[in-house]
Amino acid sequence: MSAATVSPQRVAVIGAGAVGCYYGGRLAQAGHAVTFLMRRDLAAVRARGLRVTSPDGDFVLPAPRVVASAREIGEVDWVLCALKATALEEARALIEPCLGPTTRLLVLMNGLGLEERFAEWLAPSRIFAGLAFTCINRGEPGVVHHLDYGPVTLAHLLDEPSALEDAAALWRGARVTVHASPSLRRARWEKLCWNIPFNGLCVAAGGITTDRVLADSALRGVAEQAMHEVAAAGNADLAAHGERERIDGAALIARMFALTSTMDAYRPSTLIDFGEGRPLEVDAMFREPLRRASALGVPAPAIGVLSALVGALDGRRER
Amino acid sequence: MSAATVSPQRVAVIGAGAVGCYYGGRLAQAGHAVTFLMRRDLAAVRARGLRVTSPDGDFVLPAPRVVASAREIGEVDWVLCALKATALEEARALIEPCLGPTTRLLVLMNGLGLEERFAEWLAPSRIFAGLAFTCINRGEPGVVHHLDYGPVTLAHLLDEPSALEDAAALWRGARVTVHASPSLRRARWEKLCWNIPFNGLCVAAGGITTDRVLADSALRGVAEQAMHEVAAAGNADLAAHGERERIDGAALIARMFALTSTMDAYRPSTLIDFGEGRPLEVDAMFREPLRRASALGVPAPAIGVLSALVGALDGRRER
Repeated sequence: MSAATVSPQRVAVIGAGAVGCYYGGRLAQAGHAVTFLMRRDLAAVRARGLRVTSPDGDFVLPAPRVVASAREIGEVDWVLCALKATALEEARALIEPCLGPTTRLLVLMNGLGLEERFAEWLAPSRIFAGLAFTCINRGEPGVVHHLDYGPVTLAHLLDEPSALEDAAALWRGARVTVHASPSLRRARWEKLCWNIPFNGLCVAAGGITTDRVLADSALRGVAEQAMHEVAAAGNADLAAHGERERIDGAALIARMFALTSTMDAYRPSTLIDFGEGRPLEVDAMFREPLRRASALGVPAPAIGVLSALVGALDGRRER
Repeated sequence: MSAATVSPQRVAVIGAGAVGCYYGGRLAQAGHAVTFLMRRDLAAVRARGLRVTSPDGDFVLPAPRVVASAREIGEVDWVLCALKATALEEARALIEPCLGPTTRLLVLMNGLGLEERFAEWLAPSRIFAGLAFTCINRGEPGVVHHLDYGPVTLAHLLDEPSALEDAAALWRGARVTVHASPSLRRARWEKLCWNIPFNGLCVAAGGITTDRVLADSALRGVAEQAMHEVAAAGNADLAAHGERERIDGAALIARMFALTSTMDAYRPSTLIDFGEGRPLEVDAMFREPLRRASALGVPAPAIGVLSALVGALDGRRER
């Protein structure tokens, strides 16, 4: 398979927001045949192309293939699903038209338990997670601003090393640093260790950027407490599923704070969603980790408060 | 002393917001010589009197004695201090001009540790707490809307029964139900059992009323968790100070929820303060209980998150 993946792959980007456009754009730049399913930016991209600003190099795709309906895409080798987790129910109808017998799905979304949901209707051997550690926003239609970072951690739902190699091969030649994680479960919990405190606090504290969390010793303390809870719940989850490796909570927390301290005044995706009146990713990012912690008997009071508050703020939006 | 307190007392109300106007008004209505130190409502009350709407009976004080400076008040028998806890530093300068050798101070404020702060410069035997369980708002200048409830729990900083009787005597004949608590410390913690979850969540969840907390099972769960933490910290504090009685957490929590369920869509004072751009009572209502819990080794994660968030929201106001 490695040989094949050096040749151009057919890729469908389902959910062409900032993340989908950026990573799909990088694959197109590397020579893959990428089709973007677009809504908001469709007309702008058709008229002026897709423009990306990035510390890893600005680029323009002058005439990318963009479509308004998944049925126009046809069968592909890889589907990159970069929908919001709140659109999970719509995902199947958008992805199925792109599937051939060996098409693989890369879930470029935030939250816990998403791959398991896709496995209800797609073979788990074909499902991968892509955890994007990136600061990225949409600008005007057709423009994506990649602000910082960008590495993607790849994982496979069955944690098969050869499958992981195939996934990594897709990114060979693309200006994206990829890491392969031997445990999808661990990778997902480790990512939550950032998303739960920072996405949660930045919204619940009235709409603040990450630097303000770091500068406020009380908020910072809450972030650390939530991280400890995430690590403990993650480790209980790993143990319950017979995985041997554990999250090194102290090291991970130190790394998360060090990373965040270089981020400047960053607006996490939940804050951007809230500001734009979009549904918040409460269930995948907060409630599912909380449910698992609860089922595993791991106390998670800080996650509980953040989950309830983000849920309530999401409810306000809908009124 | 009981005989004396049936006769009209000279009362100064320092901090004539909704609470000060209402309870001072009830004392004036009962025949006491009440002087109100006013800022916002001064001109309106001088022009049109003080008007109170209340389920316990609307009333008007056509020409109450209102002053703009504490020096105009003169010596009184009782000072009702109804300042916001955020104005604690200003309290001494406002109260001292009203003090004679036996003047007593009733602290009609929210939060923990306030009486102890007053005891830094006033004899503890002269310091009382008044814990107002009431739903009350200011309307247009000169108008106070008492919406519901209204009982005041009286306590004495030294928990002396005879002093408590004197305090209760002041309210005889006034349309206010008073209860005497044998333990100021316990009364303060019990009151926090409502204020911490409801004042905290209503602000942090984006500005919602109490009914919305009750209707949202996740928020309700957080409120209950915070109440358990308050009760546990309170009991540790009582034990550490050699007090025999304990807070019955389960009974108190059930009572707090039952009470709140009859409140309709109530805006706690912290939410009103936030909406009006006033400083929030973070220190007395959240941080001091948290500090005590921490010092006593009682885990209080939900209080910690609420304290940090209300503190951050307070910080945003100041920017």
